[in-house]
Amino acid sequence: MATLRKQYVVSRPVFSEDSFAENYEKINRIHKTTKDHIRQYFSDSKRVKKAALSLLPVIEWMRSYRLKQWLMGDVVSGVSTGLVAIMQGLAFSLLASLPASYGLYTAFFPVLAYFLLGTSRHISVGSFPVLSLMVGAVVTRLVPEDGPPAMIPAFTNLTQDQQRVLVASSITFLMGIIQLAMGVFQVGFVVMYLSDTLVSGFTTAAAVHILVSQLKFVLGLTVPGISGPLAIIYTLEKLFVQIHSTNICDLVMSVVIMVVVFIVKELNDRYRAKLPVPIPIEVIMTIIACGISYGFNFTERFKVEVVGEMVSGYEAPVAPNMDIIRDGGVEAFPMAIVGFTVAFSVAKVYSIKHDYAIDGNQELIAFGVSNMFGATFRSFAASTSLSRTAVQESSGGRTQIAGLISALMAMIVTIALGFLLEPLPRSVLGALVIVNLKGMLMQFTEVPYLWRRDRIECVVWVGTCTAAIFLGLDLGLAVGLGVELLTVVFRAQFPRCSVLANIRGTDLYRDRKDYLHIYEPPGVKIFRIPSPIFFANVEFFRNKLIEAVGFNPLRVLKKRNKALRKIKKMLQQNNYHITETLSSSPEEDHEDQPNLEEPDSPCHMKDLPFKMDLPFKVDWRSEMASDLGVPRVNLQSLLLDFSAVSFLDISALKGLKAIIKEFLRVDVEVYIVSCDAHVLETFHRFAFFDDEIQTFMFYPTLHDAMVQVTETNQSSNYKPMLKATRL
Amino acid sequence: MATLRKQYVVSRPVFSEDSFAENYEKINRIHKTTKDHIRQYFSDSKRVKKAALSLLPVIEWMRSYRLKQWLMGDVVSGVSTGLVAIMQGLAFSLLASLPASYGLYTAFFPVLAYFLLGTSRHISVGSFPVLSLMVGAVVTRLVPEDGPPAMIPAFTNLTQDQQRVLVASSITFLMGIIQLAMGVFQVGFVVMYLSDTLVSGFTTAAAVHILVSQLKFVLGLTVPGISGPLAIIYTLEKLFVQIHSTNICDLVMSVVIMVVVFIVKELNDRYRAKLPVPIPIEVIMTIIACGISYGFNFTERFKVEVVGEMVSGYEAPVAPNMDIIRDGGVEAFPMAIVGFTVAFSVAKVYSIKHDYAIDGNQELIAFGVSNMFGATFRSFAASTSLSRTAVQESSGGRTQIAGLISALMAMIVTIALGFLLEPLPRSVLGALVIVNLKGMLMQFTEVPYLWRRDRIECVVWVGTCTAAIFLGLDLGLAVGLGVELLTVVFRAQFPRCSVLANIRGTDLYRDRKDYLHIYEPPGVKIFRIPSPIFFANVEFFRNKLIEAVGFNPLRVLKKRNKALRKIKKMLQQNNYHITETLSSSPEEDHEDQPNLEEPDSPCHMKDLPFKMDLPFKVDWRSEMASDLGVPRVNLQSLLLDFSAVSFLDISALKGLKAIIKEFLRVDVEVYIVSCDAHVLETFHRFAFFDDEIQTFMFYPTLHDAMVQVTETNQSSNYKPMLKATRL
Repeated sequence: MATLRKQYVVSRPVFSEDSFAENYEKINRIHKTTKDHIRQYFSDSKRVKKAALSLLPVIEWMRSYRLKQWLMGDVVSGVSTGLVAIMQGLAFSLLASLPASYGLYTAFFPVLAYFLLGTSRHISVGSFPVLSLMVGAVVTRLVPEDGPPAMIPAFTNLTQDQQRVLVASSITFLMGIIQLAMGVFQVGFVVMYLSDTLVSGFTTAAAVHILVSQLKFVLGLTVPGISGPLAIIYTLEKLFVQIHSTNICDLVMSVVIMVVVFIVKELNDRYRAKLPVPIPIEVIMTIIACGISYGFNFTERFKVEVVGEMVSGYEAPVAPNMDIIRDGGVEAFPMAIVGFTVAFSVAKVYSIKHDYAIDGNQELIAFGVSNMFGATFRSFAASTSLSRTAVQESSGGRTQIAGLISALMAMIVTIALGFLLEPLPRSVLGALVIVNLKGMLMQFTEVPYLWRRDRIECVVWVGTCTAAIFLGLDLGLAVGLGVELLTVVFRAQFPRCSVLANIRGTDLYRDRKDYLHIYEPPGVKIFRIPSPIFFANVEFFRNKLIEAVGFNPLRVLKKRNKALRKIKKMLQQNNYHITETLSSSPEEDHEDQPNLEEPDSPCHMKDLPFKMDLPFKVDWRSEMASDLGVPRVNLQSLLLDFSAVSFLDISALKGLKAIIKEFLRVDVEVYIVSCDAHVLETFHRFAFFDDEIQTFMFYPTLHDAMVQVTETNQSSNYKPMLKATRL
Repeated sequence: MATLRKQYVVSRPVFSEDSFAENYEKINRIHKTTKDHIRQYFSDSKRVKKAALSLLPVIEWMRSYRLKQWLMGDVVSGVSTGLVAIMQGLAFSLLASLPASYGLYTAFFPVLAYFLLGTSRHISVGSFPVLSLMVGAVVTRLVPEDGPPAMIPAFTNLTQDQQRVLVASSITFLMGIIQLAMGVFQVGFVVMYLSDTLVSGFTTAAAVHILVSQLKFVLGLTVPGISGPLAIIYTLEKLFVQIHSTNICDLVMSVVIMVVVFIVKELNDRYRAKLPVPIPIEVIMTIIACGISYGFNFTERFKVEVVGEMVSGYEAPVAPNMDIIRDGGVEAFPMAIVGFTVAFSVAKVYSIKHDYAIDGNQELIAFGVSNMFGATFRSFAASTSLSRTAVQESSGGRTQIAGLISALMAMIVTIALGFLLEPLPRSVLGALVIVNLKGMLMQFTEVPYLWRRDRIECVVWVGTCTAAIFLGLDLGLAVGLGVELLTVVFRAQFPRCSVLANIRGTDLYRDRKDYLHIYEPPGVKIFRIPSPIFFANVEFFRNKLIEAVGFNPLRVLKKRNKALRKIKKMLQQNNYHITETLSSSPEEDHEDQPNLEEPDSPCHMKDLPFKMDLPFKVDWRSEMASDLGVPRVNLQSLLLDFSAVSFLDISALKGLKAIIKEFLRVDVEVYIVSCDAHVLETFHRFAFFDDEIQTFMFYPTLHDAMVQVTETNQSSNYKPMLKATRL
C-alpha cells in the first residue's frame, strides 16, 4: 500500500476564462478546411500512386511472396480448406433453398475476385450460413415451394430451380453493388455501429433460424419456405402438423451423424495440441453416407431425399433481373451489412494475430466486386465462415494462394466429381449444418452475464435476438440497430445529477451526499451536469436543477412581477409624488433566435418583464418579499459544473439560455465551470451571449469560481431604498 | 472589466483516488430499489387519493371555478372558437378525404371527453390538419377514389363514403388505444425525442403535403388519392396531366379568397393592439361564398363541386373494424405520436403562460379516451390546432367551459344549420386551408439559420422534411427520428481528442497546441477523451491514442517478444549455464469475460505472452532495443483525462482493458484521471480490475497525477541486469 506523502501546493491568481485568456494568449491555429484536405491529398503524387496500388493489393503481397517458405503451407491449407468449402457449399445451398451445385459455384467465383482485391490474407471467402439463409428468405418469398411464383416477366419458361437461381444471383448482385458503393464512398465505418452485443444477439437468432430451417431435412419432411415476420412460428407449426410422416431413415442417419461429429469435434478440441491436423470427421461422414446411400439405394428403398443431379461444369453468365432487384432491394441492404461485418471482423482478428494491415473500405470494394462477379456466374452471396477460415489459417495458409487452391478444388468437383455426391442424402447435410451451430447457440450463455453487468446491454442482446427470431433477420437487424442507438441516447438522457460541495481543506468537490467533511457556503449551489446536453434531456436537467435549488425561478419571477404591479398600484393610489413613466411593459428581449410560431416554442419570455420602472429597488431577500406572497430566494450564486458536457445541440442551448436568464432575473448569479474548449466554441458560434448572459460567467475550475463567489458575496450588501411594509 | 487579483492558494497532500478514499470516508448510502419506490408510492394513502383524483382533473378545476369572473369570457371565447372549429372541421375533413359533416363530429365528440379528462385549460381539442392528412392517407389507401376498395369483409353493402368513415373511425380508435396505453404505462416522455428541429421539418413537410392535396379542389380537378412513398410526385403528375380542364370558376374564386384572406390576416396581425377582436375574415368569406354559390347556382352553371348533402344530426355508434385495425396498425402509431406531441407542446406553452401544471401522461390518457370515444361516434383523429387554440385563449377563454361551448356550436350546425353550408364550393375550403399554411411553410427560413449554426441540426431538419415529403408522413417521421437519434451518436462518436499540457505555474491543463507557455515533462503524455465511450467510438479512441503517443503498443509488444525469443535462442545456442523453465507460453489471462468464439473478438491476448522466462530483465529503453529491431518507447506515463467520459458500455470497457494492458505490458504506466464517481462504479461493477489493472491508477485531478508521476519518474532508475550487445 503506497502512502502518498507528496504535497500538492498551488499558488496562483484566481482565473475566470476571460482573465485566463488575457494572461495566456491562445495560439491562432488555422484549421484546415475539407477543401484543403482534398487538395493536399491529391497534390501528393506518391499518395495517388499508393492509392491506385492499394486498389489491387494482390500486386503488393505477391511481390513479397516467399515461394519456398510459404507455398507448401498454402497448398496444404488450400486442400484442407477446399474440402471444407465443398462440404459447406453443399450444405449452405440448402439454407439458400437452391440446388446443391450452386453452393460449389459460391466456393469458386467470389474467391477469384477476392484474390485480386482483398487485403486479408487469411479469410476463406465463400458461403456464410447466416447470409445463405437471408438469400433463402428472398428466394422462397419470390418463388415459393407451393403456389405460383411472383409476377416477374423473366420467370416465364424457367423451371422453379432456374427461377430461384435467378432470384439469388440478382439479389447477390445488388448486395455487391451496395458493398462496392459503400467502399467507394468510404463509409466502411458504419460497421462500428454493430457492437459485439448486437452481433452476438443477431447471430444467435440466425442460429435458431438455421436450426429450424434444417429440421425438415433431418426429419425428411416437405415444408414450404415461409418468409416474413413470424415465419419461424408458421414453419414450426407446419413441421409439427406432419410430424407423423417423419422419414425414420433420415432421422436415424441424422442423429447418428450429429452424435458422431459432435463427439469427434469435442475430441479434436481437447487434443488440439497433440493432433497434427484435426480429424476431418465431416468429410469422412459425408463419404460414408454417400457410399451407404448409393450401395443400399436409399432413394428408392426409403424414399430418402438426396442431393440429386449435379450440374456438371459451369453455366453461361446471367444478367441480374431488374424486377427482382427492385422487389428485393430492402433485403439486400442488411445482407450487404451482415456479410461485410462478419468478414471484416474475422479478417481483423487474423490481421492482428499476424500483424499486417487490412483496409475496411478496400475490403468492401473487394467483397462488392466478388459478389457482383460471382452473381454474374450464378453463385450466391459470399462472405466468410469462421470455421472455414480457422481451418485455412491453422493448416498453414499464409496468403490467398490457399484460397485460390481451395477454389480450384471446388472447380474440380463441379467439373468432374459432382456425380459422386448425387446419392448424398440431404438429411446428412442438414445434420452437419445443425451440429456446427453449437458455438453460435452457446452465445445464449451471455445473457445472464450481461444481465448481471449491465441491464441496458442485456436489453440490446435480447431485443436484437428476439426481433431477429420473430420478425426475420433483416427486420431484426434493423430493430436491433434502432434499440442499440437508442441505448446511447438513453444512457446520456437520464444521468444521475448531483449537488457538489467542497471537501474541507482541499480544492476538490464531490457529491455532498457522499461525504461528511464537506463545506457548502451559504447562498451557493454547485450543480453537476454529468452528461452531454441535447434535445432529449434538456428538460430533464431543467427539472433536476429546479429540484436541486429548491425553487422554480420562472414562478418566482412571475410572483415578483405581480407584487411589483401591486406596489405600483399602491403607489399610484396613495399619490406618491413620484414621476413615473408607465410604459405598458418593456419588451427587452434581444434574442436573435428566430421567434417563429412553432407549435412548441417553450416559453414566451416577452410576457415576463423583469424590470419595472419603479423609483426604487426592491430587495427580494428582505422580509417584505414574503409579506407580498413572493417566495424568498436564498440562493445567490449557482455554479454549473460543465466538465462532463461533451456537446450541446441547439435545443440544449435554447433551453440553457432560457433557464440561465430566469435565474439571472431573480438575481442569482450563474457561473459555468470547467467547460471544454470546444463546447465554449459552440456557445460563441450560436450567439449564446447577449447583454444578460456574458462571457465573464465562465471559470476554468470549480475552485476558481468558488473563491471568486464567496469573496463577492461577503462584500455585497443590499441596501434597499425603500423598506416597504404592508400599507 | 473586472480584474481578478484574488489568489488561488492550495496546499494539501497529493491524492490518488485510493488515498482520497482512505482520508475521506464515503457515507454508505443505501439506494432505494424500484420495489422500495413502488411500496413507498402506494403506502402513502394521500398520494393514492390524489392519483385517483388526478384521473378526473375536471373535478379540481370546476371546484375552483369563479363563475362571475370567468363565465362571460368562456362564453365569448367559446362562440368565437366554435366558429373557427366549424370552419376548420369542414376544411380538414377534405384533408381526411371524408364528407364534410364528419369534420363537425370531430369538433364535438372528442371535446366532451377532453373536458372531463384533460389537464390543459386552454387548448381547443379537435381536428388538426397534419393528423387529418395522415388519416386521409390511410383512407385513400384502403378505399381509393377509383378502383376497388381493400378486401375487407365489412365493406360489403357500404357506400364508398361509409367505407371511408369506417376506415377513419377504426384507425382513430386504434390511435386512441395507443395513446391511452402510453398514458397508462407512463411513457409520455417519448415526446422528448421529437426535438424542435424535427417537429419543424416534419410540419413543414406536412404543409407541403397539405398544399398539394388541396390543389385539386382549388383547380376543380378530380385526382384519386394516392398514398405511399413518392405519392406526392404521382399526385402532381396527375394534376398537371389534366391542367387544361381546370375549372376557371373554382380557380378564380379560390385566388380571390386567398388574396383577400391573406391581406386581412396581415392587417389583423399588424393592428392587433388596436382591434378589439381580429376580423373573422374566414367566416365572412365563407358566408359570402355560400350566398353567391347558392344565388348563382354555381353547381349547375359552372359545374363547381360543393360540400353537398350534410348529414343532419348524429349517426349511431360504430364498432371499430378489426381488419382495418390490423391493416393500418403501422400508420396509427405515428398518428398517435404526432397528435399527442402537437397537443402537448401547445398545452405547455399556455400552461407556462398562465402558470398551472399540466401532466403529460394524463394528457395522453385524455387524448386516448377522446379519440376512442370520438371514433365510436364516427369522428376522426383529434388533437389541437395552433390557430384555434390561439383564438380560444386570446378571446378570453379560461377553462374548458369555452371548449364545451364551441362543441355545442358545432352540434347546433350539425343538427339544425348544416343545410346552409351545402352550396359552399369545396374550392373555397381548399383556398382557406392553403392560406393558413403560411406559418408552417415559413419554417423553411430556418434552414439557412441552422446551416450557419450547426450543420448536424440542419441535416436533421432537411432529412426529416425531405423524407416526410417524399416517403409520406409516417415513414418520414420514422426516418427523421432515426436520423435524429443517429446525430446524438454521431456527436459523441467523432469528438476532437487532444493532448494536454500543463500551463506553466498553474495547476491547469490545456490543449498543448493552443498555448505557448506550456510544460510537458519528458516521458509523460496527457490524453483527453472528450466524450462518453461506447461501441461506436472505442476503436476511434484507440486509433487517436496510438496516434497521440506515436507508437502502437501491440506492435511494440510483438516486436519485443520476437526479440526475446531471439535472445533466448542465442542464449541456448551459446550454452549459457542457465536453468530455464521453458513453458510453451504462459497463459496469464484471467479475464472473466466469456471468451466465446465470437466472429469479432477483437484480439487474442493469449497469443501474446508479455513475460518470458528469461534470467534477466531487458531494458527496452536502452540502445539494445533498436539493435534488435524493437522500436524504442520514450513514454513512461500515460495520463487519460476522463473528466468528460459520462458513461461507458461493455464494448468500451473491453476495448479500454485491452489497450491499457497493451500499454502496461510495454512498461508504460497508465493513469485514469478525473473519473466521475458513477463511471468509477461502472469500472468496479464490470470487474475491470485484475492483477495488472488496479485501482491505484485512478487520480482525482490531473495535477495530482502529474505531481505523482514526475516525482516517480525522477526517482526511478532502470538497472538492466544484462547489457546485451549484438553477439
